[in-house]
Amino acid sequence: MIKRGDDLARLLAEALRSLGLQLQEGDIVAVCQKIVSKAEGRIVSLKEIDPSPLARQFAARWDKDEREVELVLRQTSRIVRMDNAMLIVETGPGWVCANAGVDQSNSLGDDLAILLPEDADASAARIRAGLKSITGVEVAVLVTDTFGRPWREGLTEVCIGIAGMEPLLDMRGTTDLGGRELHHTVLAVADELAAAAGLLMPKAGAIPAVLIRGYQFKPAEASAKALIRPAASDLFR
Amino acid sequence: MIKRGDDLARLLAEALRSLGLQLQEGDIVAVCQKIVSKAEGRIVSLKEIDPSPLARQFAARWDKDEREVELVLRQTSRIVRMDNAMLIVETGPGWVCANAGVDQSNSLGDDLAILLPEDADASAARIRAGLKSITGVEVAVLVTDTFGRPWREGLTEVCIGIAGMEPLLDMRGTTDLGGRELHHTVLAVADELAAAAGLLMPKAGAIPAVLIRGYQFKPAEASAKALIRPAASDLFR
Repeated sequence: MIKRGDDLARLLAEALRSLGLQLQEGDIVAVCQKIVSKAEGRIVSLKEIDPSPLARQFAARWDKDEREVELVLRQTSRIVRMDNAMLIVETGPGWVCANAGVDQSNSLGDDLAILLPEDADASAARIRAGLKSITGVEVAVLVTDTFGRPWREGLTEVCIGIAGMEPLLDMRGTTDLGGRELHHTVLAVADELAAAAGLLMPKAGAIPAVLIRGYQFKPAEASAKALIRPAASDLFR
Repeated sequence: MIKRGDDLARLLAEALRSLGLQLQEGDIVAVCQKIVSKAEGRIVSLKEIDPSPLARQFAARWDKDEREVELVLRQTSRIVRMDNAMLIVETGPGWVCANAGVDQSNSLGDDLAILLPEDADASAARIRAGLKSITGVEVAVLVTDTFGRPWREGLTEVCIGIAGMEPLLDMRGTTDLGGRELHHTVLAVADELAAAAGLLMPKAGAIPAVLIRGYQFKPAEASAKALIRPAASDLFR
């Protein structure tokens, strides 16, 4: 169980050692948001939350905890949909997701909720730098979270923070087998890597990090915010 | 290059043999939609398409090929958004995606387009049965395609047809590390598996199938349509 102030890079390095694994150049380490947030102290006591009138009314209509609703609103820069007991919002950094990523499960106890990291790119960069200083190896790091999506049932793991690699693979200008130019093909490889890692992170929480080896990524100083579709080109906000 | 009438199960079995690989119980074979559609003859000549007035007007406004727009409309049961040169629709089977999944790239030549399989679950079941009869091994099969999504940049590989496994992993009723019941956790594992496979399917098209080994899925006679969020609970249609 991760506590505030824990050094995730050191804990990951110890876990790798205990499994007999050594980091290699080209590895990717995917770390779930929850342990990142816990280590960064992003835990809030609902007892200290004084709900606004909006939070009270929405909670009353849909039989929700008004303190949880208020906490979500405090992480919100814009409400995308507020209906059917669901609160889909834009967070400060720009993620569009349910409940601003605020999570009550796997918490330290009742009446506690976990917020997203304040800057998950910075979280990923710190873990990357820590692993470099402990092991001497430069890996890429993803911070991942479990998001729902429109149109499709079920949650998938996506990338919300990145260090050391490009989150998008831009194929535009290359040609296909028929010699036709690919016009629209930008692949969200960081989300596909997160999804692959998600398969090995059961939600009961016992596996908070996954080592991905053998995927050839494009090294870069980058931000996971490249995965946020600009509002102007998004027909669904 | 796959042609109409090709036996994909036989070709996949031959490819596995040539790679020195043997299928095992518990394996998952992910096959990209494009070769499935080609083998099933889901190729249309745009020269035979007579565009409707709606197709003509939308194409004229956004500088698109009116025959392509018409072809998309013919695969469409409901238009979700029609703006900004984008046509987001529900297909007959219920998938919500851009251009009804109609694809002009990697085609056999100009003026040809590829449609989605008519019933990708049935396609997956045929490949599964073929692999069973050739190799004696029962695997799960996914048919995958590359879809965009709201809110997030970039395309990811998703599952549109399945045979032999549950596409969703329902964790509701189980408890997390803190003993809290998980209320909302249904995971779209078939989409996460498709995404993992997508990382190994470069869009130039040279790798149309991926063998996934070591993921413990729930065997079932199932349909990928379980991945379609019912319109009534979807705030974004």
